Amino acid sequence: MAGNSFGKIFRLSTFGESHGAAIGGVLEGCPAGLLINEQAIQAELTRRKPGQSKITTQRKEADQVQFLSGIFEGTTQGTPIGFIIPNTNARSQDYSHIKDQFRPSHADYTYAEKYGHRDYRGGGRSSARETASRVVAGAIAKQLLKNISIQAYVSSVGNLTLDAPYQDLDLTKTEDSIVRCPDAATADKMIALIDSVRKLGDTIGGVITCVIKGVPVGWGEPVFDKLHADLAKAMMSINAVKGFEYGSGFSGTKMLGSMHNDPFLPNGKTASNFSGGIQGGISNGEDIYFNVAFKPVATIMQDQPSINEQGEAITVKGKGRHDPCVLPRAVPIVEAMAALVLADHYLQSKLSRI
Amino acid sequence: MAGNSFGKIFRLSTFGESHGAAIGGVLEGCPAGLLINEQAIQAELTRRKPGQSKITTQRKEADQVQFLSGIFEGTTQGTPIGFIIPNTNARSQDYSHIKDQFRPSHADYTYAEKYGHRDYRGGGRSSARETASRVVAGAIAKQLLKNISIQAYVSSVGNLTLDAPYQDLDLTKTEDSIVRCPDAATADKMIALIDSVRKLGDTIGGVITCVIKGVPVGWGEPVFDKLHADLAKAMMSINAVKGFEYGSGFSGTKMLGSMHNDPFLPNGKTASNFSGGIQGGISNGEDIYFNVAFKPVATIMQDQPSINEQGEAITVKGKGRHDPCVLPRAVPIVEAMAALVLADHYLQSKLSRI
Amino acid sequence: MAGNSFGKIFRLSTFGESHGAAIGGVLEGCPAGLLINEQAIQAELTRRKPGQSKITTQRKEADQVQFLSGIFEGTTQGTPIGFIIPNTNARSQDYSHIKDQFRPSHADYTYAEKYGHRDYRGGGRSSARETASRVVAGAIAKQLLKNISIQAYVSSVGNLTLDAPYQDLDLTKTEDSIVRCPDAATADKMIALIDSVRKLGDTIGGVITCVIKGVPVGWGEPVFDKLHADLAKAMMSINAVKGFEYGSGFSGTKMLGSMHNDPFLPNGKTASNFSGGIQGGISNGEDIYFNVAFKPVATIMQDQPSINEQGEAITVKGKGRHDPCVLPRAVPIVEAMAALVLADHYLQSKLSRI
Amino acid sequence: MAGNSFGKIFRLSTFGESHGAAIGGVLEGCPAGLLINEQAIQAELTRRKPGQSKITTQRKEADQVQFLSGIFEGTTQGTPIGFIIPNTNARSQDYSHIKDQFRPSHADYTYAEKYGHRDYRGGGRSSARETASRVVAGAIAKQLLKNISIQAYVSSVGNLTLDAPYQDLDLTKTEDSIVRCPDAATADKMIALIDSVRKLGDTIGGVITCVIKGVPVGWGEPVFDKLHADLAKAMMSINAVKGFEYGSGFSGTKMLGSMHNDPFLPNGKTASNFSGGIQGGISNGEDIYFNVAFKPVATIMQDQPSINEQGEAITVKGKGRHDPCVLPRAVPIVEAMAALVLADHYLQSKLSRI
Repeated sequence: MAGNSFGKIFRLSTFGESHGAAIGGVLEGCPAGLLINEQAIQAELTRRKPGQSKITTQRKEADQVQFLSGIFEGTTQGTPIGFIIPNTNARSQDYSHIKDQFRPSHADYTYAEKYGHRDYRGGGRSSARETASRVVAGAIAKQLLKNISIQAYVSSVGNLTLDAPYQDLDLTKTEDSIVRCPDAATADKMIALIDSVRKLGDTIGGVITCVIKGVPVGWGEPVFDKLHADLAKAMMSINAVKGFEYGSGFSGTKMLGSMHNDPFLPNGKTASNFSGGIQGGISNGEDIYFNVAFKPVATIMQDQPSINEQGEAITVKGKGRHDPCVLPRAVPIVEAMAALVLADHYLQSKLSRI
Repeated sequence: MAGNSFGKIFRLSTFGESHGAAIGGVLEGCPAGLLINEQAIQAELTRRKPGQSKITTQRKEADQVQFLSGIFEGTTQGTPIGFIIPNTNARSQDYSHIKDQFRPSHADYTYAEKYGHRDYRGGGRSSARETASRVVAGAIAKQLLKNISIQAYVSSVGNLTLDAPYQDLDLTKTEDSIVRCPDAATADKMIALIDSVRKLGDTIGGVITCVIKGVPVGWGEPVFDKLHADLAKAMMSINAVKGFEYGSGFSGTKMLGSMHNDPFLPNGKTASNFSGGIQGGISNGEDIYFNVAFKPVATIMQDQPSINEQGEAITVKGKGRHDPCVLPRAVPIVEAMAALVLADHYLQSKLSRI
Repeated sequence: MAGNSFGKIFRLSTFGESHGAAIGGVLEGCPAGLLINEQAIQAELTRRKPGQSKITTQRKEADQVQFLSGIFEGTTQGTPIGFIIPNTNARSQDYSHIKDQFRPSHADYTYAEKYGHRDYRGGGRSSARETASRVVAGAIAKQLLKNISIQAYVSSVGNLTLDAPYQDLDLTKTEDSIVRCPDAATADKMIALIDSVRKLGDTIGGVITCVIKGVPVGWGEPVFDKLHADLAKAMMSINAVKGFEYGSGFSGTKMLGSMHNDPFLPNGKTASNFSGGIQGGISNGEDIYFNVAFKPVATIMQDQPSINEQGEAITVKGKGRHDPCVLPRAVPIVEAMAALVLADHYLQSKLSRI
Repeated sequence: MAGNSFGKIFRLSTFGESHGAAIGGVLEGCPAGLLINEQAIQAELTRRKPGQSKITTQRKEADQVQFLSGIFEGTTQGTPIGFIIPNTNARSQDYSHIKDQFRPSHADYTYAEKYGHRDYRGGGRSSARETASRVVAGAIAKQLLKNISIQAYVSSVGNLTLDAPYQDLDLTKTEDSIVRCPDAATADKMIALIDSVRKLGDTIGGVITCVIKGVPVGWGEPVFDKLHADLAKAMMSINAVKGFEYGSGFSGTKMLGSMHNDPFLPNGKTASNFSGGIQGGISNGEDIYFNVAFKPVATIMQDQPSINEQGEAITVKGKGRHDPCVLPRAVPIVEAMAALVLADHYLQSKLSRI
């Protein structure tokens, strides 16, 4: 299996299955001399961890990261940062009933066909548990990106949409609600909606918006590795993501060029920002903002018709613990992946001129 | 400048500025023994070339590809395929008036800031002319992917949307209209809309839908290199693209899991296909389909206020030749990038099992 | 720090410092379906571990590998294989006296200058302890390379050279002597020499020869990634290595082409094998053989004049435990690195033809 | 075919067969703002080109490089530098007689087996003609490495060895002799030897020594991408190379550690330099020096028994034009590859600290 590494210079490789001994990662390319705040890293992990509120899965995981290398006397050494997160709540027996079943819209079938074998316990490698490793590395990236803020929030759940543009929101309030929507009134509605879906044993999707401030002009490698192309790949690699748009996005397709073009001001800033902070694949100093679409997760607490490995019709039972809506826990993952992309492009940007 | 290469195994590196001597590329990793149909490659280039109809730029380029290596006696040798496309209509003097100007929503400003220097002639490296090299490599990829069809078409221009799902369309008719929309009535409306925009010296955006049939189960490398993540990056790397969604996409965010899950049929097929042919990052044998959002291109034939390299207010004149809507010419580019992604994952898929 | 990963498809990333919590690695790209013999892996580690005989360092390390992922029910899953080897004998206080000292011909000075910081305990990342992770991954590679034998042995220590060509040796006897030389008489002399050097508190270098049998025709990617170029890099990346030669090597430079050319026999075999089993960078089916030169290791038990971080003259004390000659313990490392190169090229070779 | 690219940041991809339309390359990652001296590049190519003296092949090639992109107004743009070298003397008919023959110790057999197909004309992709592209890129690398000198010379031909250490030689005299040995008396002997070998229709090998001065402390990425490991791979990837050693090399294996260790002086310099300017894989500021072993090239002007593609015994005729000794023409190739490695590590070194 290729595809377990992300980034060119600031490069994360992850490993681990949902119900193995541990998950973890190796982060290469972090420059030496960075003071590491381990508490801040753990705080990001805690934002992602299960069981944090009534609208997330009730599974409990300590999700404590252990650093094995690369940090000495609190400072990065320039050497690879190895870390693990032990799997403490691996109730594998919960999964014996689905050992030879293909759950609809999960990766069970495709893994079985691709690899022959598969670790059926909790989705194995395909579980979103893998993203905890991304959050660890992303938290280190955030510490490298000192003057940059990366703020994601839930902007829609199902048909409930927060219509205000991000500029009108107080993004410091995102963490005030368990759904991670900065607008209190909308947050309450979202929570009620998710709760009602949960009671049905069902799940629901939504959109996360991410806003990045403070990126200087010049990050992004044109042609294939455009900054937004790497952000897109980063976001699309998160479990359950179905779409990505930045700046004017899909709605920009309905505009005329004369409206869409962002006029320059004498200081090099632009009067509007339909470009979303990126022009020609390179940051232009304006805010970068984008939307990420999440489908309703496939694990539902309802019985579903399906097939087993022998191709026979079966019923997949809905039981156990699940997230009725992954959006709240996905907010730190979106931020982490954005941070990984930016850290990588920050380092690459140092090489553009003699 | 990193970022001029795409793919891990089937890997294209491109070079060339819009008004230099030539653009071109090197395609590595194409297996030996593939019979090459050069006419089919040239036909793809011709679908992309300027001046092909009244709704594209009137600039004329021969866009003749010359192969320099890698093909001997009509067959790939396993060695890198080097090719060039000479720039025959490089009217560089057309650009002397914008030598020190920053055109709004182009890459002029970001290139100047990032690299210090820039080739101002026709956008230099940031020009969409670079995509001709992608079309060449994509055409080779299509020949490698014998039993797979990749069909893109224009599904919206501005507010004009072809509402029918792709299953209800006859995609063989896409090439029948100059706008590359398979529905004749909608195509006519699109052409009229683009023509009216052209007369205003303006531009307009739209959406291209792409449908891929025949991909077997098992392509895609989970975690970071999910098949749809690589498709997203590929599409987002095309000039003027602002968004990507596959399967249920953004509209899937409004669904419940119980509706969104695709039930398995006894043959391993699924009764619905909200997954868009990819589950857990791996193809599941169903059709792969996705949408790509294009903004209205930045080159308009209207005067615009802007700044020059000295930061002074100026007027950028609208003159010369331009595409009022890039969608028709972008159809073969979308297909080419999809083909590059699939060829790369096809080869990677050979390594998943002992 | 880049440079912690090796291989393109079958790719190992390692992490860990000599006196941190653990060292370890992530092995990507191992195909699914390989039955893993963990005892065989541990046996390779044991061949490398310290304290194994009177002519190696007397430091004791358990060197027990723990697999965290990628193997389920004894079989590779196609997912990354994460593993750690805890550092159990990290007597860091042994190193406090050299905290700000630069030991001659170690990496202390260059690490300090490059990274600012350094983990001075036992050489930190620059310690040959890192190679234990390579041995783990190499042992997996050996299991993937079912019909290939990779046999290294000590062919010289100082001026003591085993003059017989490998064809005249019984390589199954290599493990019979603690110095890992298959000729018993020479082995005894080598042991005596190393022991005398040890008593002087000094160290001595030597040469390891490696013989690989069973590689089919066609492995190796010509031009830059020639099979022998990758073997050279692999070997040169091992601590203390100063030289590499394959086939006729340096002595081949004294030959005439008419003598050096290997005549083909009707079955495609060659009558001689000065080519060393590789022609044009691709294996030709003959035995691959090469020599690796190891310098005397820098840690000696003698006082040496040097400088400290302030640039002041000091004396570096010779104390503690050390290897008087690394050759015996390097034999499994050479084999492991050869196995990694071959496994990677084996997988790449599957992609050379349609 | 993978393996046509070299370098991580400063990255060259080459293409082209010996008798195709052209060979060439794409150089990515060269920073913007470098003034390019095209005459200096052409001068390096001329050092490598055939027909330059009586002891090289009499084949004539113009070997004129044409730059297609990446340089504008004499300065690098940060965009990829594409270039071609047309093949002007492609007398392919010279090769029709060996169309189905396997020349001993060439790549004919291994290419045929690996790829099925092969371009038999002049060795196709396996020809050393490919190295002309490396010389172009290496010449650009030299211009990037402003304060670094890279000087290679022929230090032995057959049994004729220049015994003086490089410090005792005037390396500015290397170009004074057609054999590129800086000692006039030895050069004359070498020329006479090569000439006598040529008259026999035979070939002879030798050693090139390379000395690099001016590399600052801190280049090289430890563990796998040690500076000397990358130099080794670079050199071993050159056609006909059989061995590499740096610093004390193979002779260092006979030394004791107490003699081999390089004592530090108070300024951080070392009193001796058995380390060869690299410690722990990182440059230490001392001279870097290494030897490269070249076998006698396989093309001889004598009849040789061999086989054809059908496995039948045949005689390969010795006719045409050939190099009796590749060493003189290989000197600029060794320098070019060294420059590529250093340029890449120079750029990487910028990223080691925050």
